[in-house]
Amino acid sequence: MFIVGQALQKASLSFRHTQRTNTLVKMAGAKEDGYSRRIMQYMEGFMVSKTLFTACELGVFDYLNASECPLSAMEVAQGLGTSMDGMGRLLSACVGLELLTTQHSADGQVLYSNTEMSTMFLMKSSPQSLYHSVEYNSNTTYLCWHNLTDAVREGKNQYEKAFGVSSKDLFEALYRSDEEMVRFMQLMNSVWNICGKDVVTAFDLSPFKSIYDLGGCSGALAKQCVSVYPECTVTILDLPKVTETCRKHFLSAEDVRISICEDADLFILARILHDWTEKQCRLLLAKVYQSCKPGGGVLLVEALLSEDNSGPLTVQLYSLDMLVQTEGRERKGSEYTSLLTAVGFSTIHICRAGNIYSVILALKG
Amino acid sequence: MFIVGQALQKASLSFRHTQRTNTLVKMAGAKEDGYSRRIMQYMEGFMVSKTLFTACELGVFDYLNASECPLSAMEVAQGLGTSMDGMGRLLSACVGLELLTTQHSADGQVLYSNTEMSTMFLMKSSPQSLYHSVEYNSNTTYLCWHNLTDAVREGKNQYEKAFGVSSKDLFEALYRSDEEMVRFMQLMNSVWNICGKDVVTAFDLSPFKSIYDLGGCSGALAKQCVSVYPECTVTILDLPKVTETCRKHFLSAEDVRISICEDADLFILARILHDWTEKQCRLLLAKVYQSCKPGGGVLLVEALLSEDNSGPLTVQLYSLDMLVQTEGRERKGSEYTSLLTAVGFSTIHICRAGNIYSVILALKG
Repeated sequence: MFIVGQALQKASLSFRHTQRTNTLVKMAGAKEDGYSRRIMQYMEGFMVSKTLFTACELGVFDYLNASECPLSAMEVAQGLGTSMDGMGRLLSACVGLELLTTQHSADGQVLYSNTEMSTMFLMKSSPQSLYHSVEYNSNTTYLCWHNLTDAVREGKNQYEKAFGVSSKDLFEALYRSDEEMVRFMQLMNSVWNICGKDVVTAFDLSPFKSIYDLGGCSGALAKQCVSVYPECTVTILDLPKVTETCRKHFLSAEDVRISICEDADLFILARILHDWTEKQCRLLLAKVYQSCKPGGGVLLVEALLSEDNSGPLTVQLYSLDMLVQTEGRERKGSEYTSLLTAVGFSTIHICRAGNIYSVILALKG
Repeated sequence: MFIVGQALQKASLSFRHTQRTNTLVKMAGAKEDGYSRRIMQYMEGFMVSKTLFTACELGVFDYLNASECPLSAMEVAQGLGTSMDGMGRLLSACVGLELLTTQHSADGQVLYSNTEMSTMFLMKSSPQSLYHSVEYNSNTTYLCWHNLTDAVREGKNQYEKAFGVSSKDLFEALYRSDEEMVRFMQLMNSVWNICGKDVVTAFDLSPFKSIYDLGGCSGALAKQCVSVYPECTVTILDLPKVTETCRKHFLSAEDVRISICEDADLFILARILHDWTEKQCRLLLAKVYQSCKPGGGVLLVEALLSEDNSGPLTVQLYSLDMLVQTEGRERKGSEYTSLLTAVGFSTIHICRAGNIYSVILALKG
């Protein structure tokens, strides 16, 4: 009993003492605490990503949206066929990320509903859905990045290690199965659903009636073009199996102004050059220049590094992503300008379009 | 030429126009932009983690620190035997994360050096090094989390899928090779190097002369105890192969007050209960209670969820981590209090110790 009493007394004394000294230590150690907190956040980054990815993949946001009232973890778990324990923890972490909010039922149960943010971007059915982008990042990009250390050592992409496919032909590796090809096309589709309008309105493209979108993939950017410019037609150029899938899954009978092969006034290369080496880019742009009429041009859409290479962080990360997944890199505006002038383009304008992408318009004199 | 002129004129008009409407659109779309920016950050989380992990694993911070002056990407790449291209992009992303800073040489080359933050926490040799924590997160935890969706579905850990080892006996899986066991012990070691002092000073433990650290692993917390309390001795209890490795790799001849098996005044269970189910925790705590002298007690060290389960985010993520890696979970203070009172402990104090961990002192009346 002596020890108990003594311990208690000291414990409570020491508790107060700790509170007080904590304030002093906090001031001295605030910088250090800030640093360690920051590094912990970086280290947790993959957990944050996977929490978001898993909640999307399991259909949590769609299920909550379809319900007329907020639901308990038990109801969500039963509805989606998952363990109650796992779902409870997942929903709780989503609250921490502000992807869900909670309220209490009359009998004290915690009930979950979507936030505006998750309704807007994370439901499969939302017009601005990032669902397919999430799916691709979770199943493909996450595993490629597991081999980042080897990618930096070797200076090349990691398809072979991550998926056992040769990466000699980049798009053979990327499109290693029909399923993977459709996933990739859905990824591109969801990106242009969000960023496409900013991109096609960065410059007034109405003088160009006939537009070629090279590597136009699912046609999402083509759709944005024809909806903004009533007089233009857009031609998608891509691998035969891509254009076939595009026709079958992504275009509808109403998309009459999106077609294949005509004479072009403007070539669009949206997120194409960042897949390739300098040499490959020069070859491609030289061909585009040759095919251009005088007065016509090329529109590059890429995420740009700042001229001093100091940011933005997103683009620095994308450039590492290009290392683990492609043969290319993200570049500065001046690097694209050099590539364009080297093949003959003369008048070059750069405009930032929204959060991530910039648009470069180059004309043939 | 007409088209060129017209295009240019419209392009520049439209550029100004875009700037102006952007301001209006920005106000209307600021909320939406904020949301999409936030979700993009969550989606990039794994890239941020892996950038930090790879820079650590390759020894970037150690190499820069060992150099007398800032170095170019080329010099770092040559010194560490990596590709120049990959290293350039990695260093650039580290600048974006403020793990490195840059300056320019006389001939305009970009030169890199460590920031205070990376010097303090990311060098292998720093006293507060998180290097081993990084290594474990990058090679083990990252891959377990790849299977988070299955973990939530099944409600159990993912060692079998991630590493092909049965998870029937949790620590058989965790210690599936001697190398993995040492890695895990180094992880624990690096955590207590940073958080250990806050933990052992949360309460005045000087009344307890003989302390048992159950699952004491590498002995890092035991070292913190004997350094703060000059009169105590600490006994580490763990699996035979762990205590053997602890003696061989982690303790030195000077650690005379750290030993095996005596009569205990205080049992420490630091990050032990979060590995186990409620039933296993009750069994373990009941045994501890029986072994306790009157006036003695138990000290639990755990990361606590808030009572309304709404945070902190780190602990919500840890609870998902326990799902993919263990049989346990993170709990609220009240849940630990219930476990402790259920087996007989009477006087319970809880104190937050530093950024992440809380300390619970429970006494036997």
